[in-house]
Amino acid sequence: MPQTSAAAAMTPETGIDRLHQLVRDDLERVDALLLDVAKNDVTLIPEISKHLIVSGGKRLRPMLTLASARVCGYQRGMHHVTLAAAVECMHTATLLHDDVVDGSSLRRGQPSANALWDNKSSVLVGDYLIAQAFRLMVRAESLPVLDILSDAAATIAEGEVLQLATMHQLDAGKDAYFRVIAAKTAKLFAAACEVGAELSDQRAHRTALRTYGHALGMAFQLTDDALDYGIGTSEKRLGKAIGDDFRDAKVTLPVILAYAAADASERRFWERAFTPGQQQKEDWQQARQILARHQALEQTRAEAGRFLQEAAAALNNLPESQEKSALLEVLEFCAARTY
Amino acid sequence: MPQTSAAAAMTPETGIDRLHQLVRDDLERVDALLLDVAKNDVTLIPEISKHLIVSGGKRLRPMLTLASARVCGYQRGMHHVTLAAAVECMHTATLLHDDVVDGSSLRRGQPSANALWDNKSSVLVGDYLIAQAFRLMVRAESLPVLDILSDAAATIAEGEVLQLATMHQLDAGKDAYFRVIAAKTAKLFAAACEVGAELSDQRAHRTALRTYGHALGMAFQLTDDALDYGIGTSEKRLGKAIGDDFRDAKVTLPVILAYAAADASERRFWERAFTPGQQQKEDWQQARQILARHQALEQTRAEAGRFLQEAAAALNNLPESQEKSALLEVLEFCAARTY
Repeated sequence: MPQTSAAAAMTPETGIDRLHQLVRDDLERVDALLLDVAKNDVTLIPEISKHLIVSGGKRLRPMLTLASARVCGYQRGMHHVTLAAAVECMHTATLLHDDVVDGSSLRRGQPSANALWDNKSSVLVGDYLIAQAFRLMVRAESLPVLDILSDAAATIAEGEVLQLATMHQLDAGKDAYFRVIAAKTAKLFAAACEVGAELSDQRAHRTALRTYGHALGMAFQLTDDALDYGIGTSEKRLGKAIGDDFRDAKVTLPVILAYAAADASERRFWERAFTPGQQQKEDWQQARQILARHQALEQTRAEAGRFLQEAAAALNNLPESQEKSALLEVLEFCAARTY
Repeated sequence: MPQTSAAAAMTPETGIDRLHQLVRDDLERVDALLLDVAKNDVTLIPEISKHLIVSGGKRLRPMLTLASARVCGYQRGMHHVTLAAAVECMHTATLLHDDVVDGSSLRRGQPSANALWDNKSSVLVGDYLIAQAFRLMVRAESLPVLDILSDAAATIAEGEVLQLATMHQLDAGKDAYFRVIAAKTAKLFAAACEVGAELSDQRAHRTALRTYGHALGMAFQLTDDALDYGIGTSEKRLGKAIGDDFRDAKVTLPVILAYAAADASERRFWERAFTPGQQQKEDWQQARQILARHQALEQTRAEAGRFLQEAAAALNNLPESQEKSALLEVLEFCAARTY
């Protein structure tokens, strides 16, 4: 069970490094598959795909698929590698479309694809990668797996559309916000874990790993939301511009909590700062002060902590193994992470 | 074998009406499935999806799937309906992204989704529909079918990216252009037919129907290219703005042919008119005059005619049936069509 105090004593790298070491060989195979998928004589396709694939993502989702398959005793072949690549490929496609929709200029510390090329190319290469993700899934020859991942793809898109409709609503409320991030972020974490379990004969573990993935994904997104307000991190470390959510007037949990607790003057501040065209440069510092006054970032990370506990509990009935320990350490990484 | 003279004597409606009558009941089931897929409490999803689904597309691709399954004797269930809906769903998603990439304002005589809503919503609802298309495919429980359609999805995106890279090249050449339209248009026609065949036990017909679909798709796109220069049609009849390709400086076969045959002055005209920001309003009439001088539209429709002959020949070895006759009549529709 992750504790904030234990997590603070541990460097974040430890939490994810054990998992990385355990699946290192398979992860290299995943990378090779991804580069293979990006190969195309239409040069824009490998250029844009590789820009994202080699740009230093944490590969957390494919590692979850690989570890989940191993936790459940999968040893019969290489389908876990194929599916891990499919999951990362789907994630990469989502990033390309996300950056178009958000108008982002930075991704993982590098200029985003839509900034380097253009929106059109990002949309179409994203479509190409979604299709390639499905081609990889088909190679794993499992209809239940295809069911899980096509359902996830639909839910992710649904979450993105829902976010578009609600992202500027200061009074959206925690539950509505949780619905958005459950769909757009946590669903792929859940599916990444679940397909690993589905490959083995241990079907009983499927629910446990889906629950673990969902809760980890929720915590991961909430931590992202807090980090975007720049507590305990820097742009360089985070690999993306701090304050993007605020500048884009994207309402995330810290703001929802601070707005709910605001006095009349603070409410007026948030309403103006989140009105298109009304935000001023000095608002950023004031936003951080108000968030600090209401401990909104601490509360957000505490919500993340509750999901991390839920994730840990989900693994209770799984047999002990190195992979299970590594999955538990991922939760500590998430609790402590600054990037 | 379609003949231009025979086709001219026949109203285009006849050609597609027979097919429509034969599959009418199943097509109603396809429409019900599509409306079901569009249902979502995130209101933007049904709004945008239905805008396209009920906006009077010809439903040619799903009809091809239904007829292909029947030609091959498929009678065991409703998977042909599910797959026809998947094919149309995939096509609808492509249209949404196409309109974003092209910046189109009109689609089937109605304002396009990106014009009514915005690019962001069109990108994300397109993603939702692609995912739903795969969910439908999974329901047909056939890995070979999933292989065909995921391959098609990747090829379509590849074709769109290739078009982005080559669409302004006046000297692209016929072969390069055929590669683009084979991928972006003909591949889905081919897959729509092939999956129908794959459902039955008549695997030998799979190649025949794929070839038929490919050739029909090529002819369909070339006819579109000619119609966009407004010969024998009107904006109202065509259901979209005439001259879009020219205004967007999108090089299609008529222009490739006219440019290849151009004298020095005509070459200068095309080069200026296809340079961003250089096109003038009166260029449209001059473009049509030059196309007429070189019979570029007639040549384009003649190329379409050759593909229609190839499509007809592909069906030679299929057993006679009402559906086969209807598929042959579709070729006549395509040869004569003005919309």
